[in-house]
Amino acid sequence: MQIVRELDDLRGEVKKAKKEGKSIGLVPTMGFLHEGHLSLVRSASSQDDVVVVSVFVNPIQFGENEDYEDYPRDLESDLQKAREAGGDLMFCPRVADMYPPGYATFVEVERLTEGLCGANRPGHFRGVTTVVNKLFNLVEPDRAYFGQKDAQQALTIKRMAEDLNMNVEVRVGPVIREEDGVALSSRNSYLSPEERRAARVLYRALSKARDLVYIDKEYRVETVRQCIEDEVGGEPLAQLEYAEIVNGDDLSSISEVKGNVLIALAVKIGSTRLIDNMLLEV
Amino acid sequence: MQIVRELDDLRGEVKKAKKEGKSIGLVPTMGFLHEGHLSLVRSASSQDDVVVVSVFVNPIQFGENEDYEDYPRDLESDLQKAREAGGDLMFCPRVADMYPPGYATFVEVERLTEGLCGANRPGHFRGVTTVVNKLFNLVEPDRAYFGQKDAQQALTIKRMAEDLNMNVEVRVGPVIREEDGVALSSRNSYLSPEERRAARVLYRALSKARDLVYIDKEYRVETVRQCIEDEVGGEPLAQLEYAEIVNGDDLSSISEVKGNVLIALAVKIGSTRLIDNMLLEV
Repeated sequence: MQIVRELDDLRGEVKKAKKEGKSIGLVPTMGFLHEGHLSLVRSASSQDDVVVVSVFVNPIQFGENEDYEDYPRDLESDLQKAREAGGDLMFCPRVADMYPPGYATFVEVERLTEGLCGANRPGHFRGVTTVVNKLFNLVEPDRAYFGQKDAQQALTIKRMAEDLNMNVEVRVGPVIREEDGVALSSRNSYLSPEERRAARVLYRALSKARDLVYIDKEYRVETVRQCIEDEVGGEPLAQLEYAEIVNGDDLSSISEVKGNVLIALAVKIGSTRLIDNMLLEV
Repeated sequence: MQIVRELDDLRGEVKKAKKEGKSIGLVPTMGFLHEGHLSLVRSASSQDDVVVVSVFVNPIQFGENEDYEDYPRDLESDLQKAREAGGDLMFCPRVADMYPPGYATFVEVERLTEGLCGANRPGHFRGVTTVVNKLFNLVEPDRAYFGQKDAQQALTIKRMAEDLNMNVEVRVGPVIREEDGVALSSRNSYLSPEERRAARVLYRALSKARDLVYIDKEYRVETVRQCIEDEVGGEPLAQLEYAEIVNGDDLSSISEVKGNVLIALAVKIGSTRLIDNMLLEV
């Protein structure tokens, strides 16, 4: 698997692939790859001729007091995992090449980015859409693959690509979980063994909410939210940041749990912020 | 010359041209074409195999009290002029196709867009960069052509294309003027004969400022600005909106007239807002 650092080298590879009539699949990541990313690489590999995995810890999507500096990095391991999953090229640009002096352009998606994580991480999605826009322009992928674990991010990027008439199909892969239900996340590496056990509360709360809707036919938004709050409240190491029950297509508020519904939550386990979600079809 | 209204039809034409190995030149306009636009169409025609002229009065770059509704339109005449200048395809999308319900994405260039026209037309450049980004993605041009008359717009679009790693070369053609120095603008059609005479004051003020620098060796920014203010102040029908002497590369403030310098002004003649500028190399 080839590592490419220079933007011009990447463009050269893209040009070559296009000339040969090959389709390109892009899996944008911040590295420290886990099975969630790798399932996307495998999807891409089954669909596209050339699979580009980008590894770039994007500074502009981190808030001032967030974990940009501490975000886990292991390029050696990423390279091996991505290769085994079917990746062809790993694109690892430098921050100074992505955001050179004088850089001034930002892409923003309104509304979709205002609630949920957007309300708690101002500027986060603006950083995400900006870097993904750049990556789309650099890699010119036929398809790009994102994980449903970041549900709001996936919807936001779909919206951006459609609104800006970008020639890319955005595909979203399912949340990948450990045996005990914990959603895979690079940030799980921050957790102590005790915190890792406490992290099960996210999936447990989501599952209880799902059962409340599907089995007990409880369609009142507030009651479902309360169920999540109670479950998270029962875990001493956990602190709920938000629990939202919203329209699964556009994240708008809903008055009852009907149609395509997203249940999403963010929880702090110690100092580690974790998110998870479930899509219900009611 | 072919007229294309549907986004999908445009994509089909672009695909065909690309497949045939043809280069594409794009001249984005709001229509009501004049010699300023046509000079760009001719440049494109001499450089590129397929010349796309887009005609789209972009609602999101107009402020609430601006002239979106009244902006002059004459598609029949535009078509004939663009064809004679070497245009191959006229792209005239509908507003509802460019900004469908739920549209939410905007592209913003910071700093460059804060002064000059940006200070007086909040949201204007955001509307411009957003629509141009969309047009670049739809037309996938090798080169795109803009006029120096809108100096701040040209710099902003260059910045956007570079920052977002768009695969397009942005070219800027010179200000085209009438015999008496008035810069060509679709908005000149708003002027009464008396106002049209008064509009000469923009070029007259710029020329006096230029002579003050080049001939009298006056390098004090305030003195040059005062010269423009006095000249515009002497025209009863004119009201100065701004006169700025700034760095011609990044529009930043300068302490003396040295290097690449942009002198730009906006003037209201009656209710019509006109802009003009000159680049000096000192």
